[in-house]
Amino acid sequence: MRNIKLILEYKGTHLSGWQLQPDKRTVQGEIERALKKIFKKNIRIQGSGRTDAGVHALGQVANFKIHSLMKPEEIVRALNGNLPEDITILSAESVSIVFHSQFNAKQKTYRYTILNRQTRPALDNEFVWHVPYKINVPLMRSEAKAFVGQHDFRSFTATDSGHTDKNTIRKIARLNIRKKNDILTFEITGNGFLYKMVRNIVGTLVDVGTGQLPAGSVKKILKAQSRIAAGITAPAKGLTLISVKY
Amino acid sequence: MRNIKLILEYKGTHLSGWQLQPDKRTVQGEIERALKKIFKKNIRIQGSGRTDAGVHALGQVANFKIHSLMKPEEIVRALNGNLPEDITILSAESVSIVFHSQFNAKQKTYRYTILNRQTRPALDNEFVWHVPYKINVPLMRSEAKAFVGQHDFRSFTATDSGHTDKNTIRKIARLNIRKKNDILTFEITGNGFLYKMVRNIVGTLVDVGTGQLPAGSVKKILKAQSRIAAGITAPAKGLTLISVKY
Repeated sequence: MRNIKLILEYKGTHLSGWQLQPDKRTVQGEIERALKKIFKKNIRIQGSGRTDAGVHALGQVANFKIHSLMKPEEIVRALNGNLPEDITILSAESVSIVFHSQFNAKQKTYRYTILNRQTRPALDNEFVWHVPYKINVPLMRSEAKAFVGQHDFRSFTATDSGHTDKNTIRKIARLNIRKKNDILTFEITGNGFLYKMVRNIVGTLVDVGTGQLPAGSVKKILKAQSRIAAGITAPAKGLTLISVKY
Repeated sequence: MRNIKLILEYKGTHLSGWQLQPDKRTVQGEIERALKKIFKKNIRIQGSGRTDAGVHALGQVANFKIHSLMKPEEIVRALNGNLPEDITILSAESVSIVFHSQFNAKQKTYRYTILNRQTRPALDNEFVWHVPYKINVPLMRSEAKAFVGQHDFRSFTATDSGHTDKNTIRKIARLNIRKKNDILTFEITGNGFLYKMVRNIVGTLVDVGTGQLPAGSVKKILKAQSRIAAGITAPAKGLTLISVKY
């Protein structure tokens, strides 16, 4: 038995997220369909974590087990030959049989992109959140510091049914906000993220940057431990999973 | 009578280029349709130049004449409200009545983007040319120098009927090639470009970089003054018109 680790890229626009769902195009579903075609049997693939409908990935990690002796580079070619054009396997490698892409993940990095100008994007519509209001970036940067470190992020997870994480304590290592012309980029690295946590963090920071929430709100919201206290949820299309470290 | 200068952005993927064509979605056609809706009459719009089907623009310039006293910022809002989401007017301003966006253009800058890796792009498919072969970038950079300056570019224009430019002499001010990870970016500035000239320049440089054509080919091809001598034509989707200077 071999354990194969994949690194993959996908455009979330026309996918219903990572997780297998009946009658929907999902990343897991498409890869398992391709694996069945190649290896003529049902093979379960394990991702480092789910991503929502519309969320993109440049470096998602997944693993699956096979008996086949097919070389990793042949697996990459065979999978890409059987996958739709919005999912690309970047690499495959044989790893220890105990490697688990979800449980062994130590750190994840996400990027969130905002187009901050009056007029809508004609080119990047599928990859950015268009915010036409004036955003105070220095204020947002200073507010973002309150997220760094270990906190209970209960206020920043979604309350949707089926997503009740028992342990809501996570540690954010870095949260950098860069501005280049009218593009704002949030890069956030942590040991793990709750359901919709990155989008709620970005949405709340934008609420502070546009004056919808006063400075100092993040500390208060973290303390409140209730989703109702936080700002809006940033749309999925601006979010990209950049990398997973083990 | 007022003369209105527009700066606009468009995603070329689902557009049949700039120029008006019956029964096809074109940039000119969509803007003239929007102008008719707003001003209740036929208004002709003049672009700085045509772009082909699939080519994008971040800073195309166009102008049109109206009697209306509508403020420039209202024209921007009205046009964007009546345009499809792959065309965005970035700005409008009242300019001298003699301003002509094509004849007065002094310099244009285009960017061409290549994804140079084995596996296809899942995210940027509409915006890059995927070249899976090894490209010798330093060799391509040194070859590119032969394009800079004033030359007869007859060998680098398309021979398609209806596009016979009489004067094929153009001046290239700059041609920079940058590499960042697996992304190659060509930025080319000149006083004007013949039909398909940028795509033929990029295609020929890639032929040199991948070893399909020997070093020194560009000089020979320029001298030959025949399209047959040049390399391949790079696909439209990697090309973006960045700016037009007056």
